[in-house]
Amino acid sequence: MGSTYGKIFTITTFGESHGAGIGAVIDGCPAGLVIDETFIQSEMARRKPGQSKITTQRQEADQVSILSGVFDGKSTGAPIALFIPNEDARSKDYSHLENTFRPSHADFTYEAKYGVRDHRGGGRSSARETAARVAAGAVAKLFLMAQGIDIKAYVSQVGDIQAPPHGQLDLSTTEDNIVRCPDSATATKMITLIDQVRLDRDTIGGAITCVIKGSPPGLGEPVFDKLHAEMGKAMLSINAVKGFEYGSGFSGIRMRGSEHNDAIINKDGVIRTVTNHSGGVQGGISNGEEIYFRVAFKPVATIMQDQASVDKEGNPVTVTGKGRHDPCVVPRAVPIVEAMAALVMADFVLRARTSRIQ
Amino acid sequence: MGSTYGKIFTITTFGESHGAGIGAVIDGCPAGLVIDETFIQSEMARRKPGQSKITTQRQEADQVSILSGVFDGKSTGAPIALFIPNEDARSKDYSHLENTFRPSHADFTYEAKYGVRDHRGGGRSSARETAARVAAGAVAKLFLMAQGIDIKAYVSQVGDIQAPPHGQLDLSTTEDNIVRCPDSATATKMITLIDQVRLDRDTIGGAITCVIKGSPPGLGEPVFDKLHAEMGKAMLSINAVKGFEYGSGFSGIRMRGSEHNDAIINKDGVIRTVTNHSGGVQGGISNGEEIYFRVAFKPVATIMQDQASVDKEGNPVTVTGKGRHDPCVVPRAVPIVEAMAALVMADFVLRARTSRIQ
Amino acid sequence: MGSTYGKIFTITTFGESHGAGIGAVIDGCPAGLVIDETFIQSEMARRKPGQSKITTQRQEADQVSILSGVFDGKSTGAPIALFIPNEDARSKDYSHLENTFRPSHADFTYEAKYGVRDHRGGGRSSARETAARVAAGAVAKLFLMAQGIDIKAYVSQVGDIQAPPHGQLDLSTTEDNIVRCPDSATATKMITLIDQVRLDRDTIGGAITCVIKGSPPGLGEPVFDKLHAEMGKAMLSINAVKGFEYGSGFSGIRMRGSEHNDAIINKDGVIRTVTNHSGGVQGGISNGEEIYFRVAFKPVATIMQDQASVDKEGNPVTVTGKGRHDPCVVPRAVPIVEAMAALVMADFVLRARTSRIQ
Amino acid sequence: MGSTYGKIFTITTFGESHGAGIGAVIDGCPAGLVIDETFIQSEMARRKPGQSKITTQRQEADQVSILSGVFDGKSTGAPIALFIPNEDARSKDYSHLENTFRPSHADFTYEAKYGVRDHRGGGRSSARETAARVAAGAVAKLFLMAQGIDIKAYVSQVGDIQAPPHGQLDLSTTEDNIVRCPDSATATKMITLIDQVRLDRDTIGGAITCVIKGSPPGLGEPVFDKLHAEMGKAMLSINAVKGFEYGSGFSGIRMRGSEHNDAIINKDGVIRTVTNHSGGVQGGISNGEEIYFRVAFKPVATIMQDQASVDKEGNPVTVTGKGRHDPCVVPRAVPIVEAMAALVMADFVLRARTSRIQ
Repeated sequence: MGSTYGKIFTITTFGESHGAGIGAVIDGCPAGLVIDETFIQSEMARRKPGQSKITTQRQEADQVSILSGVFDGKSTGAPIALFIPNEDARSKDYSHLENTFRPSHADFTYEAKYGVRDHRGGGRSSARETAARVAAGAVAKLFLMAQGIDIKAYVSQVGDIQAPPHGQLDLSTTEDNIVRCPDSATATKMITLIDQVRLDRDTIGGAITCVIKGSPPGLGEPVFDKLHAEMGKAMLSINAVKGFEYGSGFSGIRMRGSEHNDAIINKDGVIRTVTNHSGGVQGGISNGEEIYFRVAFKPVATIMQDQASVDKEGNPVTVTGKGRHDPCVVPRAVPIVEAMAALVMADFVLRARTSRIQ
Repeated sequence: MGSTYGKIFTITTFGESHGAGIGAVIDGCPAGLVIDETFIQSEMARRKPGQSKITTQRQEADQVSILSGVFDGKSTGAPIALFIPNEDARSKDYSHLENTFRPSHADFTYEAKYGVRDHRGGGRSSARETAARVAAGAVAKLFLMAQGIDIKAYVSQVGDIQAPPHGQLDLSTTEDNIVRCPDSATATKMITLIDQVRLDRDTIGGAITCVIKGSPPGLGEPVFDKLHAEMGKAMLSINAVKGFEYGSGFSGIRMRGSEHNDAIINKDGVIRTVTNHSGGVQGGISNGEEIYFRVAFKPVATIMQDQASVDKEGNPVTVTGKGRHDPCVVPRAVPIVEAMAALVMADFVLRARTSRIQ
Repeated sequence: MGSTYGKIFTITTFGESHGAGIGAVIDGCPAGLVIDETFIQSEMARRKPGQSKITTQRQEADQVSILSGVFDGKSTGAPIALFIPNEDARSKDYSHLENTFRPSHADFTYEAKYGVRDHRGGGRSSARETAARVAAGAVAKLFLMAQGIDIKAYVSQVGDIQAPPHGQLDLSTTEDNIVRCPDSATATKMITLIDQVRLDRDTIGGAITCVIKGSPPGLGEPVFDKLHAEMGKAMLSINAVKGFEYGSGFSGIRMRGSEHNDAIINKDGVIRTVTNHSGGVQGGISNGEEIYFRVAFKPVATIMQDQASVDKEGNPVTVTGKGRHDPCVVPRAVPIVEAMAALVMADFVLRARTSRIQ
Repeated sequence: MGSTYGKIFTITTFGESHGAGIGAVIDGCPAGLVIDETFIQSEMARRKPGQSKITTQRQEADQVSILSGVFDGKSTGAPIALFIPNEDARSKDYSHLENTFRPSHADFTYEAKYGVRDHRGGGRSSARETAARVAAGAVAKLFLMAQGIDIKAYVSQVGDIQAPPHGQLDLSTTEDNIVRCPDSATATKMITLIDQVRLDRDTIGGAITCVIKGSPPGLGEPVFDKLHAEMGKAMLSINAVKGFEYGSGFSGIRMRGSEHNDAIINKDGVIRTVTNHSGGVQGGISNGEEIYFRVAFKPVATIMQDQASVDKEGNPVTVTGKGRHDPCVVPRAVPIVEAMAALVMADFVLRARTSRIQ
């Protein structure tokens, strides 16, 4: 259960790390959208393993097959099924884990919930599942581009190293370096740190900031399905995410209302706010300003060190990381954050079409 | 749209700040639950306005009527409708706002979305809607108590004043003071600060921490409906919330895997973790440890000061707070956080019953 | 569970026959709709008990209170809660049934499912629940009228007495007689039959035909949520319904394709069909022709005769109808069929707004 | 939209008649179920084209690949993705239809809804989509078998030829003849009729009856999600279905309550009914008796005769059936009816686990 996201523009994912492959079915994509396969593939390339020295060395082509829903290059309104075969799955790297629970992985919890478990590479709990999200998110992005909505995420923190605030950055340069931080000086420090962590056979946490421009006012729903509540859920559903804040976020705790409130002005006939502590959302609904938020990622759980754990029978065991893993997840998570943001926004664009009698 | 939450144990809320009242319909509450109306009412009392000098002075009895779904004191499996009439609604306090957009309120965004707007007291966007959540959450709590699951929230921060970590606190003392912080020394400082802020005709932000004990392993779903993702959505759907983190949260960004990972041990036949940076959730599924998270609230938007804004036609206006408002939202938000947490957990308890063939 | 219907224009009902009352929450009604309370009440009058000699003599004003979602006479986009208090509930008429299962009622099945049961007047299983549907359906009708969609149902059969085909009838005359059959000669026979059945202390089945005019092409979804599949579910969810057919329906079994197929023509620039065996729906999507369907109702289960049954302990008992009941359900079910049809159509009108990129 | 069915045991289908293939994703299948691939394939064989002289001669192996969710032969609780490649798709048979609307097909309605259309073999509207339902339904059947629930459908009518009532039939003999009617004398007549219709270059309608044994009491939900309402929707969602009735069905219109009511008895400690006009369902919830219903299918729309229609520009055209089609759909629809019934029942079995506090 729980493998479907969205109300109108919906995505259902399937697949495991070491099974036949990973896939997604998009139901509710409006008809008539030009499906640019090159763009989808370019998004996959941003997430795929083995792309640089600071990522896992597993090699996957991550070639997306479109199995349905597209005819003559356009969406038809029928479900769009996307499939990405697994190629470089080395299941034997995991045979020693069949009866072992790895610390801070989902091994024990899946066993507790289901009684059976595909232990190979974490099975369904592997971050490989996010490949399907990136593929589907690329379709959502194509839809949003046609609406003038632009989503850009970047690495804003690794360990203690932080990038300047997003207003001071040129987000078009994010892809210029392998860590995906648009401030090159900060990026260099981040890469050095990740490299060091890798040599230490350890991992480290990080943060991603995402900025959405071009959203019209009126997206999002009151009460439970607030724009930022759905966005928070979408982000927290990404592997390794521990926190979400939008606008002023946790720093708003320390602020006074007189400081935090965003004064409203009429700017050339458009109602705007002077500041944007609201993060582009008021009462759960977009106000036309930039939507921005920050997502916290924990350090990857697989480390190349001995750790204490137990096996299925409760006997103490020592677990040592094998396989090929990322020392820091955030560089590859940038397109995942964008994909989930795109899925949330696409859904709200469609929902907004039903808010008035017309 | 978006006024329903949950998959099996569902809640649909309705009502506006100055209309006939506020209500909720619970559908999916299992049959046979003893519905303790005194308990429901005691939860309402924790949220209701006018309860202390640091809250709004609006007076509402917040008496809950059970309109359906309960017979001979027990739930029947039919929808439980709860209704709380509005009594002390002074709509004329808002007549000057009919055409004005208050800064950092939802006035402009509702207008942009719907074209019409109930301006009285914020209408549907008012936090008064949360009265319905507390009533429904009390029913969810009754269900969870029978499962041995206990949910306790408290005020962990107001402005710069922070309580010690939750492990050092006795959460049974939370209700001993009006700010709902279980550390009395910290509570005193918080109350002083809120009082000062009120005299300054201003407002201030805060944070609430919530701790869930007694959750069995296996609650939560993989992928999109992870326990912490649904919890995050539920919290972010509460008025004024700007951020959510669980377990290590944002501090996990700075940690290394070797420090963050929770070693697993066999403690008297129960599989436990030594530390709990995971916050009781791994891969979106509970592991039996304490589930804990922190929620950030911005300062209340209504301040008793002049602010620049515009009216519906875009003309500049000065807005000054009238009405009766909270200088800090967190003391009254404690039962709201618990209510939403209870709704999330009740839903997952029921969902978990379907995970295996049996 | 299962008390909510619809995807965008949704309705959640609550209430029991002998509790405080019956209600509905509409979530997803577009903003800006003029809510004509007189119209809502006139729909209630068509369903209410005691309206004629051939219906139950229970007296209910069935006055609808709008608790939320309407401001200045218009829908605001917030949930519209509707409440109808129970007034003439004589629970003592049912006290002898506390431990008895009435034949062909839901007494046993509710007991089997829930273990507890509100036995008074059938509790949640009473057709009184449909009062909430009629109230909510009236709102849906107001929305559809603005789209030019008109829904008209009528009694097409009682026992062996059948009205002529709908194409030969003037549906504007349905309300001219108490049985709601637009053919006055047939109506007279039906009334005589129902009267006789009542004198026999018995009940009898019937059928309702519904015709929807003005539907644009393109409503309904392929695959599972076909227009006629949702319509069928909606109709079958009405108490006492045993069957549903649309277009040619069961008579299509005997037809050949060459006879059944609806030839397509261009009629003054509009693509039309010559015949309409399809019932206005092809592949689950409306084609712009009249949508029509027929609904079969069983005879009411409560009869004023002795019947063999058992009590909760399995001991044989004799059950005799008490209370006040309808000898034939179809005259009062006409507005219920229309209400459910309106809810289905309103939902599809809104869903259709998301089918193309625009 | 609308390609997902079910609440807990859910199925999402994708694929078109002449695309890469057809597939389904099952989310919510309980973990630990032995997935018998041979059984799945045997169900596919019952639906596949080319199986006898009275079906279409299109040849498809309909080999199901399980892409995910199964490990060591058992379901893991993760989504089970099933894929069936298209092999014998002769798209050129349809090239003349690119701009033509076939009578009583979904060509015009898809065009009206989406503005674009995959015309090859009917695209998404083709009954080939039901291959995915049969594959997923086979998994649901495996789950139900473990619960002792048995679902058997058969052809009960073709044109005017009707089989005896189901109580007089041995349903284990259904597969003994190519028309799937368990009465061999009737079967012979049906086959002769279908053969004649085929020679006439025409098609004919039919009916399928389905009987479910072993259902415990308590399945189904009150109000909207009644067991028979969901069953009706599921059946009406199958291509070519025009009507649904359960229990007494349309014949109940003519009955009196004293005749229709099912007297209740205690049979060796089990509460049973003497007759079963209720069709095993009372108030939307199963009572433990046989659940039975009948489904009406129209004659297949593609006939090998000239028919009047128009093209996309509204110009008159003559359409003549090409390709390979069934003269009567019901023999191959038997496993589809069973599959949909299995999906409905599996969902209700899981939902029923949440009805009481436990």
